[in-house]
Amino acid sequence: MKISVLGTGVVGRKIAERLVQLQHEVTIGTRDPDATLEKNPEVGQLLAQYPGLTLLSFDEAAAGAALVVHAGNGAAAIELLSEVGSQQLAGKVLIDISNPLDFSAGFPPTLFCDGSESLAERIQDAFPDTHVVKSLNTLTAELMVHPENLPEPTTVFVSGNNADAKVATEALLRELGHRDIFDLGDLSTARGTEQYLYLWLRMFGKLGTGIFNIRVVR
Amino acid sequence: MKISVLGTGVVGRKIAERLVQLQHEVTIGTRDPDATLEKNPEVGQLLAQYPGLTLLSFDEAAAGAALVVHAGNGAAAIELLSEVGSQQLAGKVLIDISNPLDFSAGFPPTLFCDGSESLAERIQDAFPDTHVVKSLNTLTAELMVHPENLPEPTTVFVSGNNADAKVATEALLRELGHRDIFDLGDLSTARGTEQYLYLWLRMFGKLGTGIFNIRVVR
Repeated sequence: MKISVLGTGVVGRKIAERLVQLQHEVTIGTRDPDATLEKNPEVGQLLAQYPGLTLLSFDEAAAGAALVVHAGNGAAAIELLSEVGSQQLAGKVLIDISNPLDFSAGFPPTLFCDGSESLAERIQDAFPDTHVVKSLNTLTAELMVHPENLPEPTTVFVSGNNADAKVATEALLRELGHRDIFDLGDLSTARGTEQYLYLWLRMFGKLGTGIFNIRVVR
Repeated sequence: MKISVLGTGVVGRKIAERLVQLQHEVTIGTRDPDATLEKNPEVGQLLAQYPGLTLLSFDEAAAGAALVVHAGNGAAAIELLSEVGSQQLAGKVLIDISNPLDFSAGFPPTLFCDGSESLAERIQDAFPDTHVVKSLNTLTAELMVHPENLPEPTTVFVSGNNADAKVATEALLRELGHRDIFDLGDLSTARGTEQYLYLWLRMFGKLGTGIFNIRVVR
């Protein structure tokens, strides 16, 4: 499947690498590929290691992709997706794995969406012809793509308004190794997984690592 | 140990009953005992079943208690605790198991504290001489007192500023059957477990039952 990963930070790089390893045709989207290669040497290393992987501008990266992964920073999500363009995103599945983190007051950050809304819904409102699915935002990058690195199976959530888009997302999650996929319901349920970050950040602060996750026992 | 449980709703009744079964000396606090017995027949049934259990006004119930459990409604927490009185609560451990739920816009409720504060901290600020510990608020009443009703062990959290108060709380949690007790840190970490309610409510909505909990796999 042709998949476009938007964002060149650690999350975008981990996801892109794993999807290439899984034999997908992967493009990484960034604002200015030359500037990214100059500022971020890890992107160049990744491209050298996987010759099938390409780095393109946001709109070029998304062209022809069956599925788009938003791995950018939550605060810039709408701006980044606007550079891809609503026409380019129309009809596509967009997996949003970002969180509405606000670091302006230091660590731990707060969220710029309170529980009465979610960043995922803001994205859906801004791109009504795109099928937004929220997932993976409750995990550190390493566990998004290697959930088997924990000693026991854990839970990953999906939220979205379009059933087919959730089916496509769940198939991809299974390829990544996720076994307990909890479909919470429509995209408003992303308020739940985004607000969970407040607990995640406190556990991270106490454990001193992001290598942990929750298992929903029911 | 003499324990006072403040609140006669389902949470208060479950906790009081279980603590009596565990051989504690338990008083239940309410605004007006006669009015409660008239309006809430389940309280009378509980008192009839456990002759050692007593129903008293808030301040009388807390008198002489080594530990006080706030099992009232979050929205009325400060008002209820003011009826107990700051002198009565001074020096005591207060386990706050309430959540800042706001049902004014229907179900699912929102929270009247956003992630930049917590109800537990508001209570601590209002009663600075009391040792507030937040715990059990991430569970439905039945699982607070019978965590073994789930097929696998799960996690319960504690947050608080006073180390001895957390030791006392953890001992009580172990008596209730909790085995994985995660001390998140000071009382500001209650922001994490309170905001988790947004996810809890969505899982509750999907599962149609509150008989579930998370296990932190690390």
